[in-house]
Amino acid sequence: MTPTITAFEQSPDRGQGLARDMRVRWALEEANQPYNVRLVSFKAMKEPAHRALHPFGQIPTYEEGELVLFESGAIVFHIAQRNTNLLPDDANARARAITWMFAALNTVEPPILDLQTAKFMEGDKPWTEERLVLIKDRIRHRLGDLSVRLGDAEWLDGTFSAGDLVMVHALLRLKPSGMLNEYPNLAAYVARAEARPAYKRAFAAQLAVFTGNPSNR
Amino acid sequence: MTPTITAFEQSPDRGQGLARDMRVRWALEEANQPYNVRLVSFKAMKEPAHRALHPFGQIPTYEEGELVLFESGAIVFHIAQRNTNLLPDDANARARAITWMFAALNTVEPPILDLQTAKFMEGDKPWTEERLVLIKDRIRHRLGDLSVRLGDAEWLDGTFSAGDLVMVHALLRLKPSGMLNEYPNLAAYVARAEARPAYKRAFAAQLAVFTGNPSNR
Repeated sequence: MTPTITAFEQSPDRGQGLARDMRVRWALEEANQPYNVRLVSFKAMKEPAHRALHPFGQIPTYEEGELVLFESGAIVFHIAQRNTNLLPDDANARARAITWMFAALNTVEPPILDLQTAKFMEGDKPWTEERLVLIKDRIRHRLGDLSVRLGDAEWLDGTFSAGDLVMVHALLRLKPSGMLNEYPNLAAYVARAEARPAYKRAFAAQLAVFTGNPSNR
Repeated sequence: MTPTITAFEQSPDRGQGLARDMRVRWALEEANQPYNVRLVSFKAMKEPAHRALHPFGQIPTYEEGELVLFESGAIVFHIAQRNTNLLPDDANARARAITWMFAALNTVEPPILDLQTAKFMEGDKPWTEERLVLIKDRIRHRLGDLSVRLGDAEWLDGTFSAGDLVMVHALLRLKPSGMLNEYPNLAAYVARAEARPAYKRAFAAQLAVFTGNPSNR
């Protein structure tokens, strides 16, 4: 059964890969799983029909027969557990890959999102410039630890996994800040992920929403 | 094989259930799984021996034979996937319970942790009082949505699951603020979870670290 995901009709970044449907599209492409996309407006996201799918009124959602999921990490996990491209068969390697998914979402991404919150929700406040310094220090703290752990490895734990996918997508949000370049192995890690054919297909599909490809793929 | 987890030797809350080993202890108790606890000092957490277990120098970690995991969400998931007490057998119900784990960690917990960051890391800043109002509004936004979805239900999706466990533990951090009481169904939900025998055993075990029970259980 072909699953259907939701994505922004009007994305804040105009399809530059930052909206969270990108993670799901990327996982689906890594898994060679065809999918349908339903675009939703900001207004429709807050209405009951969409909230029945996503209690927090966001995207993406995932529908597959009677199953409805929300939360990009959970959807990526759902896709990944059926694909050894994304989660290895070996039980211990699998548990470690899942650990990196959670680390990306709960330890690495929150300070990175603080940067967005400070800029877009508190950008007009007198304290923001001074706070950005503090937030960037917190991000560097995580990046430094991550950089040490990654070292010279290609991926976080053996072969590419859903853990790398979610981690890279969290890190991509830092690109405009230039901070990734302070950690050359992390910048190279992100670049390696962006070079994957599945990433490129997902990126092109998301961008096509804003450049007029009607198939969304 | 009995797993070993790590916990704070000196916890900021003196064992009042907020440190993240609490989630893991609670999951282990729900799963009726005996465990060992190794206490680590703040100093030791930042040293190479601990960082080999946890790249971000935090607690908890989880060791079981050759398997080493970190990140409380990942550890809870690892425990839960082997226990129908925590993740249902039915594939769709299981996927939805996992979704709530991710929602708790990536959507509900981050604004709640911002409250801690503002108080403890920026408490001396001139902007903090004004920012606390903004942060609390963001938390209320999430709590309102969660309250609507929970409605009159006992748990988030059918029977108690690891999704409820992680969600409740994220919400517990709000208790001192009184904000939970603005959403009576959420306050009751948290109270129901705290009344579970497994929660009580985990809480007592964590508290015992600071009151002198040498077995830590």
